[in-house]
Amino acid sequence: MSEQDRLYIPKGFRVASTKAGIKPSGGLDLAVFVAEGPCVAAGTFTTNRICAAPVKWDQARVPTAGARAVVINAGNANAATGRLGEENVARTAAATAKLIGCKPDDVLVASTGIIGHQLPMEKLEAGLAVVLGSLSADESEFHQASHAIMTTDSKPKIFSARRKIDGENLSLFGLAKGAAMIGPRMATMLGFLFTDAKIRSEDLDMILKAAVEVSFNCISVEGHTSTNDTVLCLAKGRKNGEPLQGAALAAFAELVGDACNDLARKIPEDGEGATHLITIDVEGCRDREQARTIARAVADSPLVKTAIHGADPNWGRIVSAAGYSGILFEESDVSLWLNGTALYRDGSPLAFDAQTVSDGLKAEREVHIRLVFKLGQASIRFWTCDLTAEYIHLNADYTT
Amino acid sequence: MSEQDRLYIPKGFRVASTKAGIKPSGGLDLAVFVAEGPCVAAGTFTTNRICAAPVKWDQARVPTAGARAVVINAGNANAATGRLGEENVARTAAATAKLIGCKPDDVLVASTGIIGHQLPMEKLEAGLAVVLGSLSADESEFHQASHAIMTTDSKPKIFSARRKIDGENLSLFGLAKGAAMIGPRMATMLGFLFTDAKIRSEDLDMILKAAVEVSFNCISVEGHTSTNDTVLCLAKGRKNGEPLQGAALAAFAELVGDACNDLARKIPEDGEGATHLITIDVEGCRDREQARTIARAVADSPLVKTAIHGADPNWGRIVSAAGYSGILFEESDVSLWLNGTALYRDGSPLAFDAQTVSDGLKAEREVHIRLVFKLGQASIRFWTCDLTAEYIHLNADYTT
Repeated sequence: MSEQDRLYIPKGFRVASTKAGIKPSGGLDLAVFVAEGPCVAAGTFTTNRICAAPVKWDQARVPTAGARAVVINAGNANAATGRLGEENVARTAAATAKLIGCKPDDVLVASTGIIGHQLPMEKLEAGLAVVLGSLSADESEFHQASHAIMTTDSKPKIFSARRKIDGENLSLFGLAKGAAMIGPRMATMLGFLFTDAKIRSEDLDMILKAAVEVSFNCISVEGHTSTNDTVLCLAKGRKNGEPLQGAALAAFAELVGDACNDLARKIPEDGEGATHLITIDVEGCRDREQARTIARAVADSPLVKTAIHGADPNWGRIVSAAGYSGILFEESDVSLWLNGTALYRDGSPLAFDAQTVSDGLKAEREVHIRLVFKLGQASIRFWTCDLTAEYIHLNADYTT
Repeated sequence: MSEQDRLYIPKGFRVASTKAGIKPSGGLDLAVFVAEGPCVAAGTFTTNRICAAPVKWDQARVPTAGARAVVINAGNANAATGRLGEENVARTAAATAKLIGCKPDDVLVASTGIIGHQLPMEKLEAGLAVVLGSLSADESEFHQASHAIMTTDSKPKIFSARRKIDGENLSLFGLAKGAAMIGPRMATMLGFLFTDAKIRSEDLDMILKAAVEVSFNCISVEGHTSTNDTVLCLAKGRKNGEPLQGAALAAFAELVGDACNDLARKIPEDGEGATHLITIDVEGCRDREQARTIARAVADSPLVKTAIHGADPNWGRIVSAAGYSGILFEESDVSLWLNGTALYRDGSPLAFDAQTVSDGLKAEREVHIRLVFKLGQASIRFWTCDLTAEYIHLNADYTT
């Protein structure tokens, strides 16, 4: 994607962000997106049994055709916070609703940060008043919001595109955050898409779920599924015209797919301490879930990740990770390529120049692992990053 | 266990080891244990679909009442080596059988080291001739063998005990190796038990499997299930007397359990780069598998491991790892203690002195995580270690 140089802001959305004092660092930590009228909204969420209070709030409210705002705070995950945590989400939605003049149920909420601490509600409510008094449709405000949702991210992650669909210029602006605690199962950290497409809520729900399945659900940093994973899409259609259908709906689904892929890939690319983005193609499986299970086992193996970090073509770690994934196969079903070099074919090792492969791993930031099975026709593409001493340093000292 | 100061060598076993030249370092890399007559033998093995040639060989031969020898090499795993790898195991067994005068089927084989390289058979066969010419029942030879099976282990792992069972002094000598690629499912890296108990092969098989289930199957270092995991137990009964039964059999099972527990725990204790041994008790589950699944998710989370390394009581990482384990529970089912301090009760966070808990983590090499659910009566104890920058350094440079 090279559409990021300038932003295409979908019509009817405004945003603002502020330093509400939730992050100990004092940085930007609160952003609110507001639509000028009711939006169609869909979402996908973490499957973690310890799931954050805002996740429960949103899950109970999407898909909907009445969403008006999304409140996002960083610095506190509002997860594992018991009943008080749930009350605090309701209080956040109520305060926002009062300020913009809608029902609390029309306000969606997302949080990210430390688990197990209660939200500082006075700071948050004061912040909401500031933000809702300064909403703007300026590109710079959308840029700033992508910073306000960051925690340990080293850079903001945005996507923006305008496409002619059904004779009309549709815009989509998306943003995401996440650099660790990334091992999404059914959803991922925080991702938000805003568009001015006019679409039925059941169509948006289906399109978003399908897109997330092969994007945010195909990434990991260290495989630890977060309590707060949320992807929301809000569509604020123009007043005239029918909802998208047929070929136009398919073109819009492709746009949503591109947005999810682009944002999802940016997360392991910015994985904490990462020096390599690793793309894993698993092919020849019975179904996509099987391919994903194998890809995830390879992606989450610390031995695979450290080998890539060390530019070490120690491919036994890759095939043995596939071997413990839980998927049944025979050794003779497996072939492996690393950056295009065949290393293992039909269960037997191949001769190769280890130095050349190692030099390739050293020279490039991107690595390609291709595992081909003989089980069927299904495949998947998965992204992860390597594991470095810097990841350890960052995570041995994050809270206290 | 403090029975390790002197070794109790079971009657009828001899061993020798040598530097066969399999390890690039030139260290001890070949050990052979030989029984003076047929032994009852049982084993448990990796469930990795990419499983080593020696694992396939042994699996086809145990339980047996005719085992005579165990050949163990370090420096080469003989895994992912195709048909030539399988031929090389058969050749190793045949060469050993010829030298000691038994059938190849009576020789068990285990390998550990780099995956995907063919065994240097000339060196191995020359080494076998040396070893089998110098067998001894001396304690020092048993000590040396525990060094010969090491790869990245920082120290040998042995267990030795003598117990009066059924009026007779029975001895058991056990050894194990492993410091990484440890995520056993049904078995673990290499573990070997030798005893002079007289026992039926079906009893030994059952006792060993039960013991492994709650010892070697309850440890991890980074969760990467090896291709070579093998635990073998050889029992060389004295000529007189009936096989163990009743209370005596139960006492022997307890001895095997103690040996497996002791050796298993020594593996994460010596985990590559580890600075903490982490004991995880998961209680109140519907069955043991459920408890193990939760314990393994916590044990294998890099975020939990790095928090412990950083002496950071960031307990949200622990409960959220349990949350994505795949086991269904409600947040209100969960309570958590860290080193005896209650941090989370029935789904709500508790106030605690973070500095005191952090100081405790800094001061002690051993850490205790206790997760209590309200799902049932089953529990499990699991051991792992923390994740440090040293682990990354060790594994970014292991092969090339």
